Amino acid sequence: MNENRELDGIHFLFPVGEKTPAKSQKSFTGGDVYHFMFIPHESKLNCPLGNVTYTPGSRNSWHAHPGLQVLLVTYGRGWYQEEGKEPRELHAGDYVVVEPGVKHWHGAAKDSYMAQLGFVANCPENSTLTFEHVSDEEYSKLP
Amino acid sequence: MNENRELDGIHFLFPVGEKTPAKSQKSFTGGDVYHFMFIPHESKLNCPLGNVTYTPGSRNSWHAHPGLQVLLVTYGRGWYQEEGKEPRELHAGDYVVVEPGVKHWHGAAKDSYMAQLGFVANCPENSTLTFEHVSDEEYSKLP
Repeated sequence: MNENRELDGIHFLFPVGEKTPAKSQKSFTGGDVYHFMFIPHESKLNCPLGNVTYTPGSRNSWHAHPGLQVLLVTYGRGWYQEEGKEPRELHAGDYVVVEPGVKHWHGAAKDSYMAQLGFVANCPENSTLTFEHVSDEEYSKLP
Repeated sequence: MNENRELDGIHFLFPVGEKTPAKSQKSFTGGDVYHFMFIPHESKLNCPLGNVTYTPGSRNSWHAHPGLQVLLVTYGRGWYQEEGKEPRELHAGDYVVVEPGVKHWHGAAKDSYMAQLGFVANCPENSTLTFEHVSDEEYSKLP
């Protein structure tokens, strides 16, 4: 595993890991996203834990987890939004508890990196339901 | 829940929470320890996630978890030791994967606070086997 904590001249608290491959382009948009998995997506543990680093402008797609998810922001500024609700601005030290099945997205601000730990508890088969991208029109309205 | 991130003049990344009550004195020694639970010890989720802040000199007892544990250090300096192995010095940004059933302890250095996220995956009944305190004799040998 790549334990590098440096990316684009920034020192992050936890390992940045690898750039998300092109095959995951359905799950992310707007820029590069890096993943480091402390606990991989294995059915045995049923509880993935990873560090995700979003470059400015990048965000994941609208998605939902069958299990409870907790996000813990360790660097920068970004956004979290649940379907039908206003976007919530996130900063280092903030955390979000995402209830099972809630459709949501998260990612960096347009002018900032955001690093966050994320894990999903008791996620049957670790399956994530991925929906549409957060459109440039929606995203560009955020400060 | 107490969302305070300040303790003894230090600003921590995540909430410090509440001082561990005296009834937990079997599990800790050497000073005050604070806990904030993002996911509480509930059998339904089977996957507790918490932030633990160790004041200088404090550490937990030798213990073991039936499930895999991951520790993520967010502040300060401290120690992690598995039974029969040398102590490993920990700093902010370090992480430890504790295999199921491995007897171990962790805590602050004698002259530093240490804050760490910790969670246990797939821990049947969330039970932790707690053994003896880390003795002052053992602990005092550490720098």
